[in-house]
Amino acid sequence: MSIRVGIYGYGNLGKGVEYAVRQNKDMELVGVFTRRDPATVKTVTGANVYHCDKALEMTNDIDVMVLCGGSATDLPKQTPYLAQYFNVIDSFDTHAKIPEHFTNVDEVAKKSGKTAAISVGWDPGMFSLNRLLGSCILTNGKDYTFWGKGVSQGHSDAIRRIEGVQDAKQYTVPVQSAMDRVRSGEEPVLTTREKHTRECFVVAKDGADKVRIENEIKTMPNYFADYDTTVHFISQEELNEKHGGIPHGGVVIRTGKTGKDLAHNHVIEYSLKLDSNPEFTASVIVAYARAVYKMNKNGEIGCKTVFDIPPAYLSALSNEELRKTML
Amino acid sequence: MSIRVGIYGYGNLGKGVEYAVRQNKDMELVGVFTRRDPATVKTVTGANVYHCDKALEMTNDIDVMVLCGGSATDLPKQTPYLAQYFNVIDSFDTHAKIPEHFTNVDEVAKKSGKTAAISVGWDPGMFSLNRLLGSCILTNGKDYTFWGKGVSQGHSDAIRRIEGVQDAKQYTVPVQSAMDRVRSGEEPVLTTREKHTRECFVVAKDGADKVRIENEIKTMPNYFADYDTTVHFISQEELNEKHGGIPHGGVVIRTGKTGKDLAHNHVIEYSLKLDSNPEFTASVIVAYARAVYKMNKNGEIGCKTVFDIPPAYLSALSNEELRKTML
Repeated sequence: MSIRVGIYGYGNLGKGVEYAVRQNKDMELVGVFTRRDPATVKTVTGANVYHCDKALEMTNDIDVMVLCGGSATDLPKQTPYLAQYFNVIDSFDTHAKIPEHFTNVDEVAKKSGKTAAISVGWDPGMFSLNRLLGSCILTNGKDYTFWGKGVSQGHSDAIRRIEGVQDAKQYTVPVQSAMDRVRSGEEPVLTTREKHTRECFVVAKDGADKVRIENEIKTMPNYFADYDTTVHFISQEELNEKHGGIPHGGVVIRTGKTGKDLAHNHVIEYSLKLDSNPEFTASVIVAYARAVYKMNKNGEIGCKTVFDIPPAYLSALSNEELRKTML
Repeated sequence: MSIRVGIYGYGNLGKGVEYAVRQNKDMELVGVFTRRDPATVKTVTGANVYHCDKALEMTNDIDVMVLCGGSATDLPKQTPYLAQYFNVIDSFDTHAKIPEHFTNVDEVAKKSGKTAAISVGWDPGMFSLNRLLGSCILTNGKDYTFWGKGVSQGHSDAIRRIEGVQDAKQYTVPVQSAMDRVRSGEEPVLTTREKHTRECFVVAKDGADKVRIENEIKTMPNYFADYDTTVHFISQEELNEKHGGIPHGGVVIRTGKTGKDLAHNHVIEYSLKLDSNPEFTASVIVAYARAVYKMNKNGEIGCKTVFDIPPAYLSALSNEELRKTML
């Protein structure tokens, strides 16, 4: 019997989940739930579309609900709410608020007997897992996370809000020399500016003051002021043609020392190069959705993170097959 | 209260475990158990030494016994035997015999109410984990494991058994162009010869026939015949000076495609660069020894592998702290 998946919220991530479910033979997609008028939503693989109010009538038809809303306002409400009725999974990525979100979801899921997984994706998610593993293995060491080269949606949006900006794409770029220093095992202390640069491709409106726009970008607190930022003004055509994708990636590096006099250095490195950030995030979520389903079948209820889930639960293969083919 | 660790078998790996326990504040080393006369064994951090026959008198003093014997003859007997009396962990690395070893250990541990973890290290171990995770996330893809550059103990030993060879060190070297092809996402089919080369540093005995030795190495079935092998004859002094370490490493690469028409490529890469293979392996084992201890406390008995163990169990931090600091 297939694992029946629902998608709650249908933006780039929801579409990625729709594609990812299609690549997993033990799963089937029941449908997409949206706040919009279902008649206006066309799904990328032809999945059914329902209004989100319809979800509660379908609690017996869905094994895991995948929440694809935003972390700012959607997920803090939706995940605990839906955990009353469904096994759920989300990619909540406001790192500072994860403990609070966990507590809220855990309380509800324990009451309802459901299993929930929060903050699943690559960061938080696979990168977190690698930070944990690295720190447990090389206890005398330090870890570093570099992001990019890739598109930051939040930074792109921030540029678009500046007066006179028609469109924009921002790339976060890791500094090669900083990564080289980390890999050498010297355990450097690196400032924000030393780790990443920011590269902006901006389409200015006709007659807009480009000097002012560039200055507003470079001095924007939190987003750009602490970084070396480059601004390129280009045409809308060039932006569409050369910067239309949502690539991303990054690396978690753990270095540490062992042995007599701690003379031996070790470097553990986990890196991602992704053509599509939302599709890869969705692929991680769908694997963990399988784990959520299995844990619930197994009576393991409440809220989980990637730290709590035995890796074998992610696989469609049996434990015997996994030991035989992958160990 | 500390986790009380015993080391059973005292070669390079056992010494690595001794160093690693010292780097984990929640652990203490009870002692080293050896088949040799304890009076002849000097430990690297001053740990107590006992004859292995003494172990069964100390079942109440040891929370986890770390088995550091060889996979060929020691572990297939020792791990099931000691699982009758202790929580145990080993680094059994004969991939083809893992299912059989698992069954043997699982049966005993379930009867005795103990928890066992087998095949823990980096391959099998962390590399296996990454093969599993990669295959679950990028279901439409392929994974590749490259080893090195590093010293293969087995291949070095094989050279030393050739007549006229005084000493030898063999390095397994991954082929850069093959790794580049894999990273491109083309999913190449690679032969054994295309993936790795073998580089041998050999000290010949006085008057030995170097041409014959080189030929015997290069044509040795299983070990060298399927590879492009280079042989360098050097002096014992040079071997000691330049090739005295036991470095190793490697990389697991998973590539896969997602989305509409599978147009988006993704690359997941997990790589290790290790100054000391046994010390790193030992560091992984010690982290998983903590997990074995916790699982047993939690009533989770029987045999486990890295696939079965929730990552949080490896850490000395609480789940709350982990979510707050690493997720």
